[in-house]
Amino acid sequence: MNKRKLQIGVMGSAADTEYSAEVESIAEKIGGGIAKTGNTTVYGAEKDYDSLSTAAARGAKKENGLTVGITYGKGKDVWDKEGNTDVIICSGLERGGGREFVLVNSCDGLIAVSGGSGTMNEMLVAYQLNIPVVVVRGTGGWADKMADQYFDSRKRMKAIGVDTAEEAVSKIIELIESEK
Amino acid sequence: MNKRKLQIGVMGSAADTEYSAEVESIAEKIGGGIAKTGNTTVYGAEKDYDSLSTAAARGAKKENGLTVGITYGKGKDVWDKEGNTDVIICSGLERGGGREFVLVNSCDGLIAVSGGSGTMNEMLVAYQLNIPVVVVRGTGGWADKMADQYFDSRKRMKAIGVDTAEEAVSKIIELIESEK
Amino acid sequence: MNKRKLQIGVMGSAADTEYSAEVESIAEKIGGGIAKTGNTTVYGAEKDYDSLSTAAARGAKKENGLTVGITYGKGKDVWDKEGNTDVIICSGLERGGGREFVLVNSCDGLIAVSGGSGTMNEMLVAYQLNIPVVVVRGTGGWADKMADQYFDSRKRMKAIGVDTAEEAVSKIIELIESEK
Amino acid sequence: MNKRKLQIGVMGSAADTEYSAEVESIAEKIGGGIAKTGNTTVYGAEKDYDSLSTAAARGAKKENGLTVGITYGKGKDVWDKEGNTDVIICSGLERGGGREFVLVNSCDGLIAVSGGSGTMNEMLVAYQLNIPVVVVRGTGGWADKMADQYFDSRKRMKAIGVDTAEEAVSKIIELIESEK
Repeated sequence: MNKRKLQIGVMGSAADTEYSAEVESIAEKIGGGIAKTGNTTVYGAEKDYDSLSTAAARGAKKENGLTVGITYGKGKDVWDKEGNTDVIICSGLERGGGREFVLVNSCDGLIAVSGGSGTMNEMLVAYQLNIPVVVVRGTGGWADKMADQYFDSRKRMKAIGVDTAEEAVSKIIELIESEK
Repeated sequence: MNKRKLQIGVMGSAADTEYSAEVESIAEKIGGGIAKTGNTTVYGAEKDYDSLSTAAARGAKKENGLTVGITYGKGKDVWDKEGNTDVIICSGLERGGGREFVLVNSCDGLIAVSGGSGTMNEMLVAYQLNIPVVVVRGTGGWADKMADQYFDSRKRMKAIGVDTAEEAVSKIIELIESEK
Repeated sequence: MNKRKLQIGVMGSAADTEYSAEVESIAEKIGGGIAKTGNTTVYGAEKDYDSLSTAAARGAKKENGLTVGITYGKGKDVWDKEGNTDVIICSGLERGGGREFVLVNSCDGLIAVSGGSGTMNEMLVAYQLNIPVVVVRGTGGWADKMADQYFDSRKRMKAIGVDTAEEAVSKIIELIESEK
Repeated sequence: MNKRKLQIGVMGSAADTEYSAEVESIAEKIGGGIAKTGNTTVYGAEKDYDSLSTAAARGAKKENGLTVGITYGKGKDVWDKEGNTDVIICSGLERGGGREFVLVNSCDGLIAVSGGSGTMNEMLVAYQLNIPVVVVRGTGGWADKMADQYFDSRKRMKAIGVDTAEEAVSKIIELIESEK
């Protein structure tokens, strides 16, 4: 049988949090790295602004990877104007926790870069659904804060900290494979 | 910019309604036809049994098309054991109307073959979301019953009846393109 | 222990389908009838216009019944300006099948009056979730069309036809109780 | 017009985190306090175990308050065996972020007591939806950790810390009223 490619979500800050070009470049490299391994990049598609998640889709497409954007509400016209989205899913749910649930639930594993409340929300959903989480240290925000920490007193799973885009991709694949 | 491929949903009866091999073959041919036009087949992925929707994904994969399965709840192990699913989306919603809403909402257009209550549900959602619907006449069930009928007294849109798998694919593409 | 009151949904046409004052009065009477039995009226709360479902809530409140409105998206300001809604639930899902799924899924039983595509959608969801459905004959629309019909070839459940608001309430309670 | 009562959500740890009797008593008192003000207690209804959220519904019912439980998936038989739930809503969504979105989205304001990953998830959704959050200091978990903290670098809203159940109720009402 054919084997479904791994679906790796890349989550991170929205443009209004004013992340640096350096952090944006890390997100793009993660998308590119996922593409190079032949796997699928899953991202949260916004309709009104850019984000680190969208940057990952850009990076994946540069390396001819498959990209899946998951958006809120209805309507398939997302912010991505360069056409880096191969498949758009309309979750029918509001942004701010609803759409994000479908997004995370559709990932085999998740990489977080920097990130505000939305990214922390996504990591917590992953934890509750037993989906492994890798965070890039030094990128600020909740990803940084959660590096190598447990998500609660149950101590079921830590957010695994790594230092580079390359490590993030290889670590999440390793974690997903070890879960099987 | 790159252009996103059309996302064409194929909906139809579940295996417990005991559809004929002929009707199953129509569903497979529709999937194959979508693949030949280079577009994406979206289907409702069950975890426990086959369906005409799954048959369409089989057909699409035989022609190397891209396939997206949308399933209910959580858990990515769907019924498709041959690996005809390139992307699996976990809607987080129950089957029987919830998952189906995400499924239809993610389609640019929809083709229905035969079909019980679930398929009629999907056509009605498409109608409410202004997503064009093509039905294959002579396949029985709700698809047959709705051929060339309006969905309600508002008379906004008819289910367009066609007679073959080939016509179904060309007609839905025509309808989607004319909506733009 | 305390016994939870039955949650009876009343579904029907939206204002743009131009239902008659007579049909509206039936919907109001159904809400009033539910209230008189001490049970809870569940309705689909719109943000922009009236509906037979909203009329049922009005009727229920006139008889001091408990009313629960289920709306789409976010935001609790619904069309009901007289304050006939005791509890408002924001499903986070789009209207046109998503919100409706939460609405029907939260009912013990459902009464349909007249109705366009949305009402038929709701009856089909009820069928798929094994929630009994009563329809008022002579009110037109899908409710009328489905009276005493099976929803598909599985023949699991019929939409039970009745002729008056009073019968609708007593019949749905009987059906819910017999399911237990 | 009638005025809808405020819908105040009480969130907190699930039974498997082994909270103390003292913390449970705080949650019960919060529910009781909401009831005494004539407002509605909204809680997350589990099907398999107790929680601080369920404890709040118990407390509310002791004071004859109105209680609304929001559960996951389908099926209305929730853990609450004493019948402290006046209205049960079946969100159709999975637990672990999906159901929780409907739960928080349906609250005018939210009080958190102790809490693991699920409670933190709920607070973050509230933040993203502009729903005020009060946390009881000294109860441990994420509620304690977030007391008087911003949820991210946007600094839009803090989790307001209080020391008692009584203060929690009066503070959340004050915050909700000031938002209007």
